[in-house]
Amino acid sequence: MKKIVVMGGGTGNFVVLRGLKNFDVELSAIVSMADDGGSTGVLRDDLGVLPPGDVRQCLVALSNSSRLMRNLINYRFENGGLGGHSFGNLLLSALEKVTGSFEKAVEEVGKILVIKGKVIPVTTHQVRLKMILSDRTVLEGEKEIYLSDRIDRGYSSLFLEPYPKCNPHAISEIMNADLVVIGPGGLYTSIIPILLVEGVSQALRETQAKKVHISNLMNRSGQTTGFKVSDYHKTLVRHIGDDIFDHIIVNSQTPSEELIAKYAEEGTLVENDMHCSRVISAPLLGEFGMKGQSDVLIRRNLIRHHSKQVTKEIMKIVDYL
Amino acid sequence: MKKIVVMGGGTGNFVVLRGLKNFDVELSAIVSMADDGGSTGVLRDDLGVLPPGDVRQCLVALSNSSRLMRNLINYRFENGGLGGHSFGNLLLSALEKVTGSFEKAVEEVGKILVIKGKVIPVTTHQVRLKMILSDRTVLEGEKEIYLSDRIDRGYSSLFLEPYPKCNPHAISEIMNADLVVIGPGGLYTSIIPILLVEGVSQALRETQAKKVHISNLMNRSGQTTGFKVSDYHKTLVRHIGDDIFDHIIVNSQTPSEELIAKYAEEGTLVENDMHCSRVISAPLLGEFGMKGQSDVLIRRNLIRHHSKQVTKEIMKIVDYL
Repeated sequence: MKKIVVMGGGTGNFVVLRGLKNFDVELSAIVSMADDGGSTGVLRDDLGVLPPGDVRQCLVALSNSSRLMRNLINYRFENGGLGGHSFGNLLLSALEKVTGSFEKAVEEVGKILVIKGKVIPVTTHQVRLKMILSDRTVLEGEKEIYLSDRIDRGYSSLFLEPYPKCNPHAISEIMNADLVVIGPGGLYTSIIPILLVEGVSQALRETQAKKVHISNLMNRSGQTTGFKVSDYHKTLVRHIGDDIFDHIIVNSQTPSEELIAKYAEEGTLVENDMHCSRVISAPLLGEFGMKGQSDVLIRRNLIRHHSKQVTKEIMKIVDYL
Repeated sequence: MKKIVVMGGGTGNFVVLRGLKNFDVELSAIVSMADDGGSTGVLRDDLGVLPPGDVRQCLVALSNSSRLMRNLINYRFENGGLGGHSFGNLLLSALEKVTGSFEKAVEEVGKILVIKGKVIPVTTHQVRLKMILSDRTVLEGEKEIYLSDRIDRGYSSLFLEPYPKCNPHAISEIMNADLVVIGPGGLYTSIIPILLVEGVSQALRETQAKKVHISNLMNRSGQTTGFKVSDYHKTLVRHIGDDIFDHIIVNSQTPSEELIAKYAEEGTLVENDMHCSRVISAPLLGEFGMKGQSDVLIRRNLIRHHSKQVTKEIMKIVDYL
């Protein structure tokens, strides 16, 4: 059975994992640990736990449990001191406290959710993502970076503090993989934060696995304004230290004018300016409003990767391995 | 297999259920729904859910799951907006929200905890326990009643508002039982609140089951000051509307002077003043500081029923049925 490692955090990761779950492959999700917004941020600050949010989304994506159990994990409390907390986050944090280990907590929730594959935090150290803009402004934390609209004016540094050691399980997954999938996802807030962990880029350079980058569909205003596929590609290559990618999967479909207009404030479409043989251009949006896309996590974005379409392209590569 | 119904709430119930769990009997716990203190009270107020606290304790008492899972359910968050909440309470409340039914939530947690038997909320209506003291002071809520030190000066009313219909499952459990065990537990805050639910007392009068009252060990200062076994008995009989009890189990053991002194502020020993044939007097305290009693819930009280000792006396009755 082919071994696929998916790297990222947030919704992009979710879409890929959910699609690949239905195939006869061995799956591992290596998850960013830089999140510090929302419920996750409050739990980090109040309880000193590791960030559960991205891990929770991956666990749900890989879950084979009942709809009730998935709904429970995604349930958000609405009022009072609990307001905004996702139940799954509380479960992971309580288990981290009870077992004394975040990895053990992830493993236990994996059992409860009957997940296919493994979910691996890229590091088990407490880290903060920081960015220094060209005007020397310091952005502290993933949330602040996510909310900034001045990153497109340039930044000098993006780093994790303190510089964290990689979870050894993550390294061995990368080294033993047949295929590594990077993206889609927030460039500065989900993808690069994984590459910033000590040992990850080296493992990506050294592994015999094929490497695929799934390019984002939309730019984020004030962050990746005007980025084309080559800009995403170059940024990853710079952080990894080598152009490791065997394939780049890009979207060939154009959303309706109406949808693009609706999305205008958030950002514009990522244009494909790479046309070499390793670039796979395919319709990745699927039909809008399809029943298969009814999941809450996916509905949040208007223009998004269609799980089945993306997975189809990944599986074509796997079939050739 | 003999069918035993245990009625109450709080620690007393826990001790009995945990002991009976190890025997070859069919168990049901009918649980008070009047709790409104601590984590449970906050959840009721903030989320409008039914009180999870007493139900959670019964579920843990009947659990056959791993120690890790029981520790998780009992885990209390320590800081921030989550501070004081028991994870099990959050689980029950989130499941109530997701399923739309508290009973369904209890059933699901029962599965997660692999419980032996059933846990049945005595009512699934939102109720508040109220008490009117002889001086016309109104005590609003179980917590206020629990904290009052003026109840021993007399009260005119103790009632649930609004007057709740009984959960039909509770009635059928009582009607089909071979043995009903009432107590030990807080007289005004755990035991009587069950009897105040419409239909419960009638079912207790009509069922063919044998009825056992397990008398409390200690009085509560300002509440049941100076009560003897007959006072507890009379109070129950008055609320049930008939002297239904086939047996009354009382403790024959005397704790050390030291322990009694330690407990002095909370209350004094309940003296046994009933000596008819239906009164079973037995050593119910066990050895103090025994390893078998290491559970957190039991450790809270200094003088408490020993689970095995109480269960032994109940099982003697069951063996004669």
